[in-house]
Amino acid sequence: MSLIFDNSSHFRKDAIGGSWVIISIERNNRPLDWHVQLLKNKQAMCPFCPGNEQVTPNEIAAVRKKSTAPNTEGWQVRVIPNKFPALLTEGKADHVTDGIYETVGGIGAHEIIIETPDHNEELSQLSVAKLQVVLRMIAKRIMEIKQDSRLKYVLVFKNFGQAAGASLEHSHIQIIGTPILPKRIAEEIEGITSYYGKTGRCIFCEIISKELSLTERLILSNKNYVVFEPFASRFAFETWIMPIEHRQCFENITRAESLALAKIFKETLSRINVAVKKPSYNLVIHTSPISEHEETLFHWHIEIMPKLGNMAGFEWGSGFHINPISPENAAKLLCEVRC
Amino acid sequence: MSLIFDNSSHFRKDAIGGSWVIISIERNNRPLDWHVQLLKNKQAMCPFCPGNEQVTPNEIAAVRKKSTAPNTEGWQVRVIPNKFPALLTEGKADHVTDGIYETVGGIGAHEIIIETPDHNEELSQLSVAKLQVVLRMIAKRIMEIKQDSRLKYVLVFKNFGQAAGASLEHSHIQIIGTPILPKRIAEEIEGITSYYGKTGRCIFCEIISKELSLTERLILSNKNYVVFEPFASRFAFETWIMPIEHRQCFENITRAESLALAKIFKETLSRINVAVKKPSYNLVIHTSPISEHEETLFHWHIEIMPKLGNMAGFEWGSGFHINPISPENAAKLLCEVRC
Repeated sequence: MSLIFDNSSHFRKDAIGGSWVIISIERNNRPLDWHVQLLKNKQAMCPFCPGNEQVTPNEIAAVRKKSTAPNTEGWQVRVIPNKFPALLTEGKADHVTDGIYETVGGIGAHEIIIETPDHNEELSQLSVAKLQVVLRMIAKRIMEIKQDSRLKYVLVFKNFGQAAGASLEHSHIQIIGTPILPKRIAEEIEGITSYYGKTGRCIFCEIISKELSLTERLILSNKNYVVFEPFASRFAFETWIMPIEHRQCFENITRAESLALAKIFKETLSRINVAVKKPSYNLVIHTSPISEHEETLFHWHIEIMPKLGNMAGFEWGSGFHINPISPENAAKLLCEVRC
Repeated sequence: MSLIFDNSSHFRKDAIGGSWVIISIERNNRPLDWHVQLLKNKQAMCPFCPGNEQVTPNEIAAVRKKSTAPNTEGWQVRVIPNKFPALLTEGKADHVTDGIYETVGGIGAHEIIIETPDHNEELSQLSVAKLQVVLRMIAKRIMEIKQDSRLKYVLVFKNFGQAAGASLEHSHIQIIGTPILPKRIAEEIEGITSYYGKTGRCIFCEIISKELSLTERLILSNKNYVVFEPFASRFAFETWIMPIEHRQCFENITRAESLALAKIFKETLSRINVAVKKPSYNLVIHTSPISEHEETLFHWHIEIMPKLGNMAGFEWGSGFHINPISPENAAKLLCEVRC
């Protein structure tokens, strides 16, 4: 078996640090043009707008008016495969080693959830009821993707604004299922497991309890959820949302919980938009890995990362993030703003 | 001792993943303005140009005409403290723990090497002789900063272009000394140590030997140095430069070696500039940590990371980089260009 897969996406392992990288050739098969391609990301015709359903791959799921057919207008939330997937659904996750170098086949799932038919409506502008429908669709898609036994993890993320890497304006969320446990999740599990081994308690539950009592980094809380700036905040105005009770999997969210989450999620995004003048941001949902063993320890959470500066040489070379505002000052500003 | 240092930079440890973050309050003491500040980074008057020496803090070192005084014109390379340092030279690296949260005082060194008096000259445009002088100055400054017993590491880096986080146009290199071993270096040392334990050999020496024989990712080589695209390349056109023989510390470079490095370094930057149309890039030098124990195993190297796309939600949430071009194709393009 050859080590290099010439014409398809695959994972490669860094022989020194051990990190995995995705060489994503399908996303760009014209290497000479790609510099230009990455810079122009406005389209005259939006493939996510109603009426353009035929431009996208066939829909996987949708919340739509009863009388309407798939891939036609009349939807409220629409799920489609990514037309330029980072990972492909067909193939095997073959692990090939050639001395110091290792590759794994680039299989996985890559879906897009179009949050609204309205091109100009952002996630923070959706009504609580509509946001709840989006959250429930995310949960449903994670459940479905988890059934693929080749996969180890399902990551939900959103890129809002050009500085955050969004390539299309129309508001959408992405889901990628991967055959390798992501490094960030592996690091969280290591921390969770180590703390549990020492204390018998969940590190996330400890953090929540501390933040609720200290209040200096607290933004919002309701019966089910808490919103705060993390103690070692990597980005200015980085904000985390967590269930107060120990919940392993985002996808197991109940109808009542999804309503409470929609309310606090909308208010969080609105406060960030006012305090920082509508920044570009990345958002990720960290849910439990698919493996059953780890399900008992994980505590799901949402990380919102406004993108106000670039990662530069020091950050890349060292791994230290530099944050120009303390999370206590950021929390103060987010609490004070009027929405 | 209080956990939070209100008015000065400090390190904070992420209680879950274990990474350290720098809360760098000195760099920006006007939190309400910082959004605007980060966006406007052109200055009418360049503080790095000859004639403006009084605008910067006093110079630490310089290569200048014999008859000229410090902090006046007549220099070829000039080293100054960063006016807005991420870390401060005075203070103690006190480690304070409060249950799950930890901080360390934000002490360290933060210097700037102005590579040329000419505002419009880029690093790749310097003559080989001038580039050699810059490389020798870098080595000299690392040597000096290493004398501070509070420090664990000295990182050299360069941000070129706005997309790479450069805040001033005039070409310069930065050096930061840190009291905590950076995560990226710790990961490299873990890989080096693990491979050495299994085989008795240096993983970098193995990679070099493999790349020189395979040639599909090889760009350039001379008697002392090799330039190639790494197998698990994180960024399009990511390029590494390494000494072929096992050398632990960049700062121990000989005069002859620095000439050979200047030649191959200039050609590498020129090839990237032609192949990718002068991209923004970050560059880091990874040299051995200050601790003597690790000096025997480390193999120094330069990483050049062109910045053609943004890190987006998937990368932040997972830790997987997505690279749209294979290192083999990138190497082919870099070998083919005419400079």
